[in-house]
Amino acid sequence: MHIGIIGLGKMGANMRDRLRNQGITVTGYDRNPEVTDVTSTAELVEALPAPRLVWVMVPSGSITDAVIQDLSERLETGDLVIDGGNSRFTEDFKHAALLQDKGINYIDVGVSGGVWGVQNGYGLMAGGNVDQIERAMPVFDALRPEGPRDESFVHAGEIGAGHYAKMVHNGIEYALMQAYAEGYEMLAKRDDLIKDVTGTFKSWQRGTVVRSWLLELLVKALEEDPELASIEGFVEDSGEGRWTIEEALANAVPVPAMSAAIFARFVSREEDSPAMKAVAALRNQFGGHAVKKAD
Amino acid sequence: MHIGIIGLGKMGANMRDRLRNQGITVTGYDRNPEVTDVTSTAELVEALPAPRLVWVMVPSGSITDAVIQDLSERLETGDLVIDGGNSRFTEDFKHAALLQDKGINYIDVGVSGGVWGVQNGYGLMAGGNVDQIERAMPVFDALRPEGPRDESFVHAGEIGAGHYAKMVHNGIEYALMQAYAEGYEMLAKRDDLIKDVTGTFKSWQRGTVVRSWLLELLVKALEEDPELASIEGFVEDSGEGRWTIEEALANAVPVPAMSAAIFARFVSREEDSPAMKAVAALRNQFGGHAVKKAD
Amino acid sequence: MHIGIIGLGKMGANMRDRLRNQGITVTGYDRNPEVTDVTSTAELVEALPAPRLVWVMVPSGSITDAVIQDLSERLETGDLVIDGGNSRFTEDFKHAALLQDKGINYIDVGVSGGVWGVQNGYGLMAGGNVDQIERAMPVFDALRPEGPRDESFVHAGEIGAGHYAKMVHNGIEYALMQAYAEGYEMLAKRDDLIKDVTGTFKSWQRGTVVRSWLLELLVKALEEDPELASIEGFVEDSGEGRWTIEEALANAVPVPAMSAAIFARFVSREEDSPAMKAVAALRNQFGGHAVKKAD
Amino acid sequence: MHIGIIGLGKMGANMRDRLRNQGITVTGYDRNPEVTDVTSTAELVEALPAPRLVWVMVPSGSITDAVIQDLSERLETGDLVIDGGNSRFTEDFKHAALLQDKGINYIDVGVSGGVWGVQNGYGLMAGGNVDQIERAMPVFDALRPEGPRDESFVHAGEIGAGHYAKMVHNGIEYALMQAYAEGYEMLAKRDDLIKDVTGTFKSWQRGTVVRSWLLELLVKALEEDPELASIEGFVEDSGEGRWTIEEALANAVPVPAMSAAIFARFVSREEDSPAMKAVAALRNQFGGHAVKKAD
Repeated sequence: MHIGIIGLGKMGANMRDRLRNQGITVTGYDRNPEVTDVTSTAELVEALPAPRLVWVMVPSGSITDAVIQDLSERLETGDLVIDGGNSRFTEDFKHAALLQDKGINYIDVGVSGGVWGVQNGYGLMAGGNVDQIERAMPVFDALRPEGPRDESFVHAGEIGAGHYAKMVHNGIEYALMQAYAEGYEMLAKRDDLIKDVTGTFKSWQRGTVVRSWLLELLVKALEEDPELASIEGFVEDSGEGRWTIEEALANAVPVPAMSAAIFARFVSREEDSPAMKAVAALRNQFGGHAVKKAD
Repeated sequence: MHIGIIGLGKMGANMRDRLRNQGITVTGYDRNPEVTDVTSTAELVEALPAPRLVWVMVPSGSITDAVIQDLSERLETGDLVIDGGNSRFTEDFKHAALLQDKGINYIDVGVSGGVWGVQNGYGLMAGGNVDQIERAMPVFDALRPEGPRDESFVHAGEIGAGHYAKMVHNGIEYALMQAYAEGYEMLAKRDDLIKDVTGTFKSWQRGTVVRSWLLELLVKALEEDPELASIEGFVEDSGEGRWTIEEALANAVPVPAMSAAIFARFVSREEDSPAMKAVAALRNQFGGHAVKKAD
Repeated sequence: MHIGIIGLGKMGANMRDRLRNQGITVTGYDRNPEVTDVTSTAELVEALPAPRLVWVMVPSGSITDAVIQDLSERLETGDLVIDGGNSRFTEDFKHAALLQDKGINYIDVGVSGGVWGVQNGYGLMAGGNVDQIERAMPVFDALRPEGPRDESFVHAGEIGAGHYAKMVHNGIEYALMQAYAEGYEMLAKRDDLIKDVTGTFKSWQRGTVVRSWLLELLVKALEEDPELASIEGFVEDSGEGRWTIEEALANAVPVPAMSAAIFARFVSREEDSPAMKAVAALRNQFGGHAVKKAD
Repeated sequence: MHIGIIGLGKMGANMRDRLRNQGITVTGYDRNPEVTDVTSTAELVEALPAPRLVWVMVPSGSITDAVIQDLSERLETGDLVIDGGNSRFTEDFKHAALLQDKGINYIDVGVSGGVWGVQNGYGLMAGGNVDQIERAMPVFDALRPEGPRDESFVHAGEIGAGHYAKMVHNGIEYALMQAYAEGYEMLAKRDDLIKDVTGTFKSWQRGTVVRSWLLELLVKALEEDPELASIEGFVEDSGEGRWTIEEALANAVPVPAMSAAIFARFVSREEDSPAMKAVAALRNQFGGHAVKKAD
């Protein structure tokens, strides 16, 4: 099996490594000359045996658009493009249609696992035609962890289903992190009572109802910095969490925990909260309550 | 009518003024010699004609407890104590029982109106026996705004009902303020589009669905400081909002908007959020996402 | 002043009435022959003196699109189209551009007031060029309540600002209603303590911090049906609330109270909650907790 | 090692089994003659070698109070009582003081693991004096899963710390379940797109960021009933989740995800929502929007 990868950032480069370690031949292309195997997508296409298999692993949005456009002009009938990036699932319909006009196949794959995937393997959610998915199965099997295939891979549905599943996965991920984070604050704020916050989280790793991989990572972080003193409570969001809420709205699904998680991140990035200024101003107006003066 | 007031803070002193303006004789006691009319509660009791009517307007909790205890020892059978402070309604059962043992009557009254009450009048919610409430009606009529009695006064139920109603009122108040505050932030963050935030709020004062007194106060605050630049987004909570959530929990009432309001205040007072540190740490662990380093 | 109105549903017909009562000449068009003044938009355009002023008051989305398209083909240079419907503000940019190509002017106006507007007047938020807004001012003055203009009208900014302001207004409205609704449930569930729920709300109408027009409407509803026994707890949402959350997400504004309001509506419309099925299933799996069997 | 257990319900009986399987001698007492080893606590105390070790595993609140009271009268100086039930941590201070007066030792232990603990082992969080905890260590080692002790056991702090940690654990548990449940609803409502909901969850078991034990249980539940058709979305809460929110309020910790989880359960148990009736009534009042009539 010989596959091309476009995009060798943190995720793409790791995936190339894992695929090679599992015996798959990989030709990678990236604009960054330090990591790329070839100097252009033209050269990439040249290097791959037909019918080709190209895995796209670039930032979602306009960059993915451009890569798909470029591939639609370079690839041939019967080739297969796999978008393994974090595209919004609605983009898949557009990309599939564009490629289909040229007879090029398309499937979408959500990939989970972060920087640990290179050693542990990745969880994979695929959308598209069953024949194309079968065709890419050796790649999926190389990327995913050891163990039964259905515990780390799913053919979730037609085009878009893979990215939709990944989007939901990320919404869950946001809420799971918020859950542990709220628990962390509850333990940390009672340091008069709880003398070993790290040890408490660590004791949950086996036997408890809340055991999970994220819990293990939180223990790891706390072992490195027990009061998280070196880290600011400033949290980015990648945009995918927002899509999850938008899709929940579109389908009338109540997602209070997921939205709580994303709103907490928004607040974390505000130097001062306009909304809380307004509340402070209101309390001052009706109750004469003192406000904290800004400098 | 001659009434005693214990507690001449911001609220108590204002209420004394309003009562006097309405023709009620008031003897007030406060530990602060600059505002008090008499030098002790003994003197206060002395000054009032029997059967006496004493309005308690001191901070809830141990201070109210002490005042009620003191009155239970000084007052006589047939006297009436009105707790107009912000006591938790569960305290009323205790206070009523303590006084009842001495034949002293008790009613609880929730008072709303803030610093504006002295001129506008106060909204009043009373709990207790109908005879005692009738007895205090001239005081209620003097305190409340002009207009039909039932638009600013309610006999909500037996002992505790007044403070329970006031507690719910405050929970609503928290959520209303949060509603306007979220709207404020949505307008303020789009200053590329919305050129007149103050004017937008002001235009809602007549005709719209969202018109209210709090809206008018927000307009007033914005007219004084259009970007609320002098105010920090730091908001205290008086404790009553917490009781509202606790009672909601006790009665299995979902209160997501009220709790959102109180949690937003908690966050506003944190210099850094332990929970968000934990989320940042987790993202760093699984995704290698950069964290913002604390100084 | 002579104005055309397209769309004579509940809102449009009421506005025609109010305008006529205020001395404005109105020619209205609606597909419904029972309410329309003319039989076609062609006839409407014919009936209006140039330069024309046409107020569009039809459902947002494809219907508004079609009306604007139609007007772009029928109106002349110098005419003015006002979209007073509930269009998403992002639509305004598109509509303005389409009309501008023909030299036709455009402004967007958010209108609040519901069925009461015909008698009370409407709150109005306008976006667009100041000259066009001045031109329509006699119409705005006729529509809005008596009192200072700036308490019921704002020129909020350029094109789109009127609808953006109205969208935020609606988000606030959702959260305000949720606030009172949570308070209602807290009072209603303690009917052992609170003997007069309607009276309690009514007593908040004067003097209190929570007084508002929505409160008055809730009192009215409770006076008609004190236990709301005739009404199911089933609440639609018009879509505008969702836009508000989407815009909040786009601008990283935390809106926990607004989103709580919309999620509560989503839940209210579910016959059974898939999410709660999943929680029940989980509790059964780990704890052996009984589930309630579906029929 | 010979230990007594009071309370042989689902959890207590399972723990007796596990302890015996691990070579600990156990005498159990329960009011239910079918499961008890002895006929009274007197007999239990008799059966145990001094200094005795008694594990209390009964429902929290008045039943635990009564058992501790009984033990305080039957045990002797130097004996040790372990409350392994789900008592609120504030109860521990009271229980410890009561026993200490008689020279009886006390530690509190939070136990997690559900019905699976008997085979997998339990996660344990202990509070109290280090000497007493060391003394009970053979019991803890028998109860907890294989693997490093600190991955399933923690000495979290002094008296109360074990139950506080367990309470936080349960708050996290609530929010984790809510997270997966929201994701489930998002997948289930798009069955036009997602053709294999069970398979999607199953594919997350290895490699993904969201893998956890609760996820595995959800997969198990879905494999048994892929649409959860046999289960109603009706979810009890044990009361511990409420304590978590109450403690969060007491310590000013924002817990929006935990509270979302508990409010969702409250709603799930309401036949109709009073709050949503109020919102429907309001919409009808201001906008003339139709309400759904109750039967």
